[in-house]
Amino acid sequence: MTKLRVESFTISLDGYGAGPDQSLENPLGIGGMALHAWAFETRTFRQMFGQDGGTTEVDDRFAARGFDNIGAWILGRNMFGPIRGHWPDESWKGWWGDNPPYHVPVFVLTHHPRAPIAMDGGTTFHFVTDGIESALRQARAAAGGRDIRVGGGVETIRQYLRAGLIDEMHLAIAPVLLGAGEHLFAGIDTVKLGYRCAEQVPTANATHVVLKRTPGGA
Amino acid sequence: MTKLRVESFTISLDGYGAGPDQSLENPLGIGGMALHAWAFETRTFRQMFGQDGGTTEVDDRFAARGFDNIGAWILGRNMFGPIRGHWPDESWKGWWGDNPPYHVPVFVLTHHPRAPIAMDGGTTFHFVTDGIESALRQARAAAGGRDIRVGGGVETIRQYLRAGLIDEMHLAIAPVLLGAGEHLFAGIDTVKLGYRCAEQVPTANATHVVLKRTPGGA
Repeated sequence: MTKLRVESFTISLDGYGAGPDQSLENPLGIGGMALHAWAFETRTFRQMFGQDGGTTEVDDRFAARGFDNIGAWILGRNMFGPIRGHWPDESWKGWWGDNPPYHVPVFVLTHHPRAPIAMDGGTTFHFVTDGIESALRQARAAAGGRDIRVGGGVETIRQYLRAGLIDEMHLAIAPVLLGAGEHLFAGIDTVKLGYRCAEQVPTANATHVVLKRTPGGA
Repeated sequence: MTKLRVESFTISLDGYGAGPDQSLENPLGIGGMALHAWAFETRTFRQMFGQDGGTTEVDDRFAARGFDNIGAWILGRNMFGPIRGHWPDESWKGWWGDNPPYHVPVFVLTHHPRAPIAMDGGTTFHFVTDGIESALRQARAAAGGRDIRVGGGVETIRQYLRAGLIDEMHLAIAPVLLGAGEHLFAGIDTVKLGYRCAEQVPTANATHVVLKRTPGGA
């Protein structure tokens, strides 16, 4: 059965998935890059960006499993790019160059319609203007029985979480404080929604936890 | 120099230091006891309650260091007991029996005056009605150059944290979700207050982090 999964999503010790004052220069907010140190050092992430080497232990295992059996992705618009409001033209095609690291259909949540963009390497960006359930339906149809990964950002994950639609969630808790920013869980009662911590694997760089939802809820 | 320290304070993955619906039966709120599994299994905690055995590795090292060089404690009233409002009589003497595990002066924050209580084993409970700074001054005078430990609960720690008075904070992040309850960091910008994560030591039972404040702030 197709699952909706969050993978390799990193939060700070104080629960923020992005720092304050996000901007084009600081797309993850002030201090936000520090969250992802554990991931950038893995072989999986380095390969994705054409680099050699990298860690191959637990951190890498979690980074790698985030790409296992994924048939489609869902992204919030801010993860696709910095443009807000109407698309001024067709030139922006994501942060990732001509051959993005997805290689499957990617559904981008936006209020502003745009024609799909077929990229090299199997990635096609589809723009969904009628909400998170519609994006999930379309992703499910495209995933061919494989799972769907919600890439983020924080607000997109919060929307799917609140709706109880996320089946499994791998979080990495990084040993940094952000102080402010976008909080992943604020005001969301994960226990009432049926989530529990199914796995905890700490490393020197992050604490990995896997949250799962029990069908039927709490 | 006397430091104000928080030690062995445990929060859930979603940041709560106590669960929802605290009551006499569930003083830590629903699900709150699960936070402390890592601590209850340590030799340090078991000895404190007259039991043999227990873990002796990293978890125990953190539990034990929480008692090193402590010359006084500060507790919120709810940690001292379940009674709210005026003291009906002098009978309640804490949760811990005749010989509490403090063995030094303990300053209890309350709005309701009460005479000090000298217990067996060196613990004396002092009741402070004029706020957190006063409690800290009195604790400092009593600590004889050693450190002061803020025991909790969440709201007491938040008050000292907001005031930038805590020098060092050992938190354990337990692999459980609480969903609701008392959130340790909500609305507190620890980075602006000058805190950073100085140490992270994960175990199978919890992720231990030590936060330190840089004098002068952020």
